[in-house]
Amino acid sequence: MTDDEPFSANPALLPAGLSDLLPPEAAREAALVEAMMAVFASHGYERVKPPLLEFEEGLLTGSGAALADQTFRLMDPVSQRMMGLRADTTPQVARIAATRLGGAPRPLRLSYAGQVLRVRGTQIAPARQLPQLGVELIGVDSAEADAEAAALGVEALAAAGISDVALDITLPAMSPALLDAAGLEGAARQRLARALDRKDAAEVAVLAEAAGPPAIFLTGLLAAAGPADGALAALRAAPLPEVPRRIADNAADVVAALRRRLPGLRITLDPVEFRGFRYHTGVAFTLYGPGRTGELGRGGRYMSGEEPATGLSLYPDAALRAAPAGPAADRVFLPDGHDPSVAARLRGEGWITVAALSSADDARALGCTHELRGDRPVALEKE
Amino acid sequence: MTDDEPFSANPALLPAGLSDLLPPEAAREAALVEAMMAVFASHGYERVKPPLLEFEEGLLTGSGAALADQTFRLMDPVSQRMMGLRADTTPQVARIAATRLGGAPRPLRLSYAGQVLRVRGTQIAPARQLPQLGVELIGVDSAEADAEAAALGVEALAAAGISDVALDITLPAMSPALLDAAGLEGAARQRLARALDRKDAAEVAVLAEAAGPPAIFLTGLLAAAGPADGALAALRAAPLPEVPRRIADNAADVVAALRRRLPGLRITLDPVEFRGFRYHTGVAFTLYGPGRTGELGRGGRYMSGEEPATGLSLYPDAALRAAPAGPAADRVFLPDGHDPSVAARLRGEGWITVAALSSADDARALGCTHELRGDRPVALEKE
Repeated sequence: MTDDEPFSANPALLPAGLSDLLPPEAAREAALVEAMMAVFASHGYERVKPPLLEFEEGLLTGSGAALADQTFRLMDPVSQRMMGLRADTTPQVARIAATRLGGAPRPLRLSYAGQVLRVRGTQIAPARQLPQLGVELIGVDSAEADAEAAALGVEALAAAGISDVALDITLPAMSPALLDAAGLEGAARQRLARALDRKDAAEVAVLAEAAGPPAIFLTGLLAAAGPADGALAALRAAPLPEVPRRIADNAADVVAALRRRLPGLRITLDPVEFRGFRYHTGVAFTLYGPGRTGELGRGGRYMSGEEPATGLSLYPDAALRAAPAGPAADRVFLPDGHDPSVAARLRGEGWITVAALSSADDARALGCTHELRGDRPVALEKE
Repeated sequence: MTDDEPFSANPALLPAGLSDLLPPEAAREAALVEAMMAVFASHGYERVKPPLLEFEEGLLTGSGAALADQTFRLMDPVSQRMMGLRADTTPQVARIAATRLGGAPRPLRLSYAGQVLRVRGTQIAPARQLPQLGVELIGVDSAEADAEAAALGVEALAAAGISDVALDITLPAMSPALLDAAGLEGAARQRLARALDRKDAAEVAVLAEAAGPPAIFLTGLLAAAGPADGALAALRAAPLPEVPRRIADNAADVVAALRRRLPGLRITLDPVEFRGFRYHTGVAFTLYGPGRTGELGRGGRYMSGEEPATGLSLYPDAALRAAPAGPAADRVFLPDGHDPSVAARLRGEGWITVAALSSADDARALGCTHELRGDRPVALEKE
């Protein structure tokens, strides 16, 4: 790279997985984030803003441990201690709740929005910087709390213009509880867990049969995945041991609490799924957009330090792909020598103004739809 | 740190200069940022969002070179190249303007908002993570462009609730141009530059006298610092050599263009100040809030890659300290068994609702000012 060619000499301008958001997407993403944060605020969630960098011990405890190998680290020249660049915001909110807001009344409702960074992307999710926003509802362990967090996700996405969202509930503790109840350990447990992970019904049937009851329920529960009402009926009908029974009853309570909030919501339930929810202690859920828009957020029950909590994260980059783009705003060109007070009035009415800085500036080239003539905008003819 | 005491064992929870923003400040800061970004958008500035991390060559060219020693670096495990965590957004916008938006019509108006990180804080500015937002006006070299950027800063701060802002203009090229014209080099030049930097009028007088004309003008220009009209009159009256004369005339043009936009703005001009503007090539300016609120932003003319440009950065952390806090919003408690449609209607009217998750939840403890009774909020009596 030389001074004469400051940027052109290098074809790979940005590291893999790091990208620029350009107009108009950057403005759209910011507007979606603030629309969703406004929904959280309207439900009493108060915003916190932890720093991007902090000591790694703070970032990597609790729910953060799951992301230890995805966290960029650097040495703090001031303290000579290692810091991490956050890969998730939840551990930071847990730290704030346990320390500076330790004395605040519970349930504590907090929200956040910001960037997270990851050491490596994956093939289907190559981005290494992701916008993230969400809520944490801390100090309460109830189906009502889980339903509030999940319903907030649906309402926030609707505020971003994304309706027809579906909610998929999983019970990450169910499969381990059934394997525990069957007394399965070691290689036999691992084989069955892997078969569940692959959703290989035939293999699960063979292994669960061999393991004997109560592992045998896994076969039926794997088949029960689908619309929540059917899955809940299958859970109700199965003569489950104590711990799996509690997990199943709690799932029914969460679905009922969600139905009271959002009667029309499409809810699916996958009782034996446990992938990707490494720190969840109760129900977990994923929000899907319509069509092929994919995963828009997830959440569920976890431990925030020593306290029961439930949370929700939404992915504004995915919401940006799923949300319909509005029409481009009208832009009015202000010729040389225009009246600044007229321009100010137009901006007050919602116009975007683009001022000429010399007589060479061209209204159409600058993307203007109108030009100020006298005291009113006149539409430019299409060329 | 043990599992039993996840956070309490360590009294220094966060690295020096990195801090949490708590309620209600985090929400206020975000609202100020979006209010200021809306002003930029209304003047035709389109938002870009560069990544927090990129290859250090990209970050540290051009105006970025001034911040090389303040930039955190880390190794990219994917490319095995060094990346920097941005300490300023301007070099990134310059990269975008020169590459992906290289073919967009000029003048190019871009805006940005995000976080910047610095390796070390200073005694008076200890923060190592700072929110930053601003605009870059690229591809035009004129007093009108400089005035547009400076006026945008004033208008954006007004939208954030900060009126009575003062603008201080400096001419970072003036002192070097006078020292050049006097043929001053080496130790003599350094001594005079240091005396100017300290604003040591007596020492400047002695050294400038010894250096002979045109260094002698430095004495007068040092004394001329103050309200713009007086300083411009002093510049007009001085028989300056060619380059300093051009700098002075340009300053007069920028002030005149500003007066047309903002007739009531308090403008000061310090012709020989050059501190802290290491990459500016024309006028530079600083925005000050009323009273002791200090510096709220700065900007000025620079080179964006190969193109002339002018820019503005505002500091939302400083704006947060300077802006008056609005009244706290009313919060209405929703008791167990409330009607969700009534709650939704209230939120639509601007109320914040806080739902009971169990009968133990207490309206007052949760900061509520009202409680829903039937279908209307009733003010809670103060205890």
